[in-house]
Amino acid sequence: MQFQIDWQKHPLIPAIVQDSQTGEVLMLAYMNKEAFEKTLATGYAHYYSRSRQKLWKKGESSGNVQKVEAIRLDCDSDTLLLQVEQTGPACHTGRKSCFYKDLQTGKSISEPLQNPQEMYEDV
Amino acid sequence: MQFQIDWQKHPLIPAIVQDSQTGEVLMLAYMNKEAFEKTLATGYAHYYSRSRQKLWKKGESSGNVQKVEAIRLDCDSDTLLLQVEQTGPACHTGRKSCFYKDLQTGKSISEPLQNPQEMYEDV
Repeated sequence: MQFQIDWQKHPLIPAIVQDSQTGEVLMLAYMNKEAFEKTLATGYAHYYSRSRQKLWKKGESSGNVQKVEAIRLDCDSDTLLLQVEQTGPACHTGRKSCFYKDLQTGKSISEPLQNPQEMYEDV
Repeated sequence: MQFQIDWQKHPLIPAIVQDSQTGEVLMLAYMNKEAFEKTLATGYAHYYSRSRQKLWKKGESSGNVQKVEAIRLDCDSDTLLLQVEQTGPACHTGRKSCFYKDLQTGKSISEPLQNPQEMYEDV
């Protein structure tokens, strides 16, 4: 692999997640080295939760997993772009994308596809 | 405005930048309150440089400015998505997007549209 992430310099890097079919930006999460390696090894997106301070597999409780189609690194090698096949909604509110708050109108641009309570009822 | 960013809690937040026409993810940069307000006031993207520790207008030296078409905030209100009309390349390498390093093949997926030396020759 020609391109490397300097995990010493950047122990936690942001990963932008984009729907590989539609181009819609779904969410942003953070990866440490372990999450990155787990993502490469399994083909499914894993992140590091800053609030819970632990590795998590996206969709581990909701079933809304992300199959990784491509991983791109930026020019400075400190931000990732994941292109994924998203099962169900990416957002914990039940919306397809987390970016639903339009700051210019002050309105939501999308509604939940799934009831959040149902998404996590098996937890 | 119904949606607010808590600048006390998050003095610096990541802003994903997407081409409003093609959906291509162009770059990620950071905003503080001043950069965000300057962006809203002018309609052109401004960021905060962590390395130079100062406000900058995207394209101020290269001319490759970003006219902001929409600003979306995510569910946690700590990440922005800017949809922009990008003049010229967004990347300082002269490429349209900063995300040109494909980690699975180890190859660049795009070539510079512009010679970086020419982009900054007026500086």
